[in-house]
Amino acid sequence: MEKTPSGLRAHIGFLGRTNAGKSALVNALAGIEASLVSPQPGTTTDPVRIPMEFPDLGAVTLLDTAGLLDDTPLGTLREERTRQALRELDLAVMLLTSADWAKEGEMVQLLQKENIPCLFVVPQMDLRSPAPLLAKIRAEFHAEAVPVSIYDPASLAALRERIREFLRPEERWITKGIASADDLVVLVMPQDASAPKGRLILPQVQTLRELLDRGIPALCVTPQTLIKTLEALREPPEVIITDSQCFNQVAPLVPSGTKLTSFSILFASYKGDAQELARGARILATLKESSRVLIAEACTHAPKEEDIGTVKIPALLRQRIGSGLTIDHVRGSQWPHPLEDYDLIIQCGSCMFNRAHVLHRIQEARRAKVPITNYGMALAYLTGILDRVDLGEGTVPLPDEKA
Amino acid sequence: MEKTPSGLRAHIGFLGRTNAGKSALVNALAGIEASLVSPQPGTTTDPVRIPMEFPDLGAVTLLDTAGLLDDTPLGTLREERTRQALRELDLAVMLLTSADWAKEGEMVQLLQKENIPCLFVVPQMDLRSPAPLLAKIRAEFHAEAVPVSIYDPASLAALRERIREFLRPEERWITKGIASADDLVVLVMPQDASAPKGRLILPQVQTLRELLDRGIPALCVTPQTLIKTLEALREPPEVIITDSQCFNQVAPLVPSGTKLTSFSILFASYKGDAQELARGARILATLKESSRVLIAEACTHAPKEEDIGTVKIPALLRQRIGSGLTIDHVRGSQWPHPLEDYDLIIQCGSCMFNRAHVLHRIQEARRAKVPITNYGMALAYLTGILDRVDLGEGTVPLPDEKA
Repeated sequence: MEKTPSGLRAHIGFLGRTNAGKSALVNALAGIEASLVSPQPGTTTDPVRIPMEFPDLGAVTLLDTAGLLDDTPLGTLREERTRQALRELDLAVMLLTSADWAKEGEMVQLLQKENIPCLFVVPQMDLRSPAPLLAKIRAEFHAEAVPVSIYDPASLAALRERIREFLRPEERWITKGIASADDLVVLVMPQDASAPKGRLILPQVQTLRELLDRGIPALCVTPQTLIKTLEALREPPEVIITDSQCFNQVAPLVPSGTKLTSFSILFASYKGDAQELARGARILATLKESSRVLIAEACTHAPKEEDIGTVKIPALLRQRIGSGLTIDHVRGSQWPHPLEDYDLIIQCGSCMFNRAHVLHRIQEARRAKVPITNYGMALAYLTGILDRVDLGEGTVPLPDEKA
Repeated sequence: MEKTPSGLRAHIGFLGRTNAGKSALVNALAGIEASLVSPQPGTTTDPVRIPMEFPDLGAVTLLDTAGLLDDTPLGTLREERTRQALRELDLAVMLLTSADWAKEGEMVQLLQKENIPCLFVVPQMDLRSPAPLLAKIRAEFHAEAVPVSIYDPASLAALRERIREFLRPEERWITKGIASADDLVVLVMPQDASAPKGRLILPQVQTLRELLDRGIPALCVTPQTLIKTLEALREPPEVIITDSQCFNQVAPLVPSGTKLTSFSILFASYKGDAQELARGARILATLKESSRVLIAEACTHAPKEEDIGTVKIPALLRQRIGSGLTIDHVRGSQWPHPLEDYDLIIQCGSCMFNRAHVLHRIQEARRAKVPITNYGMALAYLTGILDRVDLGEGTVPLPDEKA
């Protein structure tokens, strides 16, 4: 079986100066009850990523970000690389050893600006008493650090417990707030005949697996067989989750009292901020033919045939707003500059990005004061059912920008 | 999305001497309406494998078996390699150009012995009239060859139609004879908490995708929620397909009139010969403590924890037959010699092998006069429900050995 996809993993970055013991700590954490999947050596500028499955933390990726706090000056290019590495972090673990924390202070400010929680660690407590550093961290950063030694399993367990408190893996459910234990969920999964036989797309597999893990029965149907299937049930299902592309076909068939949502809206809640993305979709009502829209696709592969981002959404936009509407496309993780020139950003479903990465993009859009939505929300709006769908509550909304 | 797994593909080998035009023909076939997924260059002894998705043929792998018919002597080692390459073929396409067909005649005999159908092709019909060769093939091999030119699309279409007649992709359904269009199917899919989050095992995904392709609703449940789910249906489902490992839990809950089978039994029918494998399982009744059992696992990866082939089945066998039972294990595609020393072979579910490969293994067992079964059939027998399960009819049984 393949490993958990990167987009579902919590990413934990380990920051600290060379010789602070980052790699030793990462290896020690990896050694306890965890299965090392496969280390992926980075390039000189990329951090080393170690995907792991912990019983208590779930699927995580540990990032060993070498030398980010070393004494080389944080030039513009270096700082940009640092920010890029930070973008995908759900949690930063900062190892503090030296007494001069000028660089560390800069980094803490940067993390705050990026809304990335930071957990302080005092390593090598077997070599020296951690008490003075713990006190100094309390004074300078107003935080309670964790003293650890890689030779003391109890200290490592305490660190993992603190990490767990930050990540709250039990709250990272795709279907949280949408389906509960006694429900029956219908999944509407249209299959593209040209898609490889014997496979299902990732969001469908991820949602189904999660429902099974939660003990919730999932009735998988195509749009064509939905009516017949609903008739086979004694009671209407509590929830129908559909592929966004067949909203129009599915919406009229949904019994009253049954929640309706889509895979992409659930993933918007799970990985981003559904309320903000829904607000972004409603901006579509205000766009004019002279407006500029940016469509951002995470995957760099070329689409084979009719593609949701390059064909379907542009056609719906031009039909509604006017054929002269400017629509630009970007692929991968880079955004064009200046972002401020756009009136709306429509981001893909982000099955390849993790939550931290999506939140970072929302934040960049906020800073540029450009509304942002995603494929699923945009389609829900354009097909007139945004107000009928359930936005879920997979994770808490993104906090407002720090002052 | 990932490509169709190799185990679901029909493998078509192109045989012919160097310069017969094998590669040109493979490329020409690949060029028409097909999407080249990714060529996988072979080593010097392995054929080049080109996975493709054809609208009419489904997912196939084209094997360019360079030089198998060249004038180098077919020594023992070379012949063994040839046989290995042939093992996985569902169809051999043999290009005939020269007039001396001594090697080709040997190859035709070998294909017959291995039960591999052979389609003769006369290439380069644009350069010379194919009529004399077509007549000679009729006389020597009692077969109607297909004349082709890579520059003549009609001839390539005719070749594909002939290939389709051999492969019969419309008959290659996992759930054929088990579920039909108006059915509702329940899939019992226990999830191993230690398995990577966000993934499902391949046979579950393949079966679900096929049911959706066929417009058959699939209700996915865990063993714990099966009762509750059955109560939510107005009528009992037509079919319950369960993971073999929870046969005991599921069997008592199956309503009368509902067919019961397992993923591994369906795959035994789809990829092998369910009747033969069921006969093999019944041999378990005759084994004694002095018997020798071979357990053959296709995957070469080491199992993480309790493994069906290394722990579960051996424990059930020893409990039933005696603790002194000899159980040997092999991994990968090699079998030990002499195979004749064993009283029973238990083969894994073979999700990594294609149908031709599984049939080849059944045939090798037949030649050694050793009964063969697989994990699913063995578990069904050992848990006492082999006579209650439906064996499916995914594909026709393996024909008896040619005289």
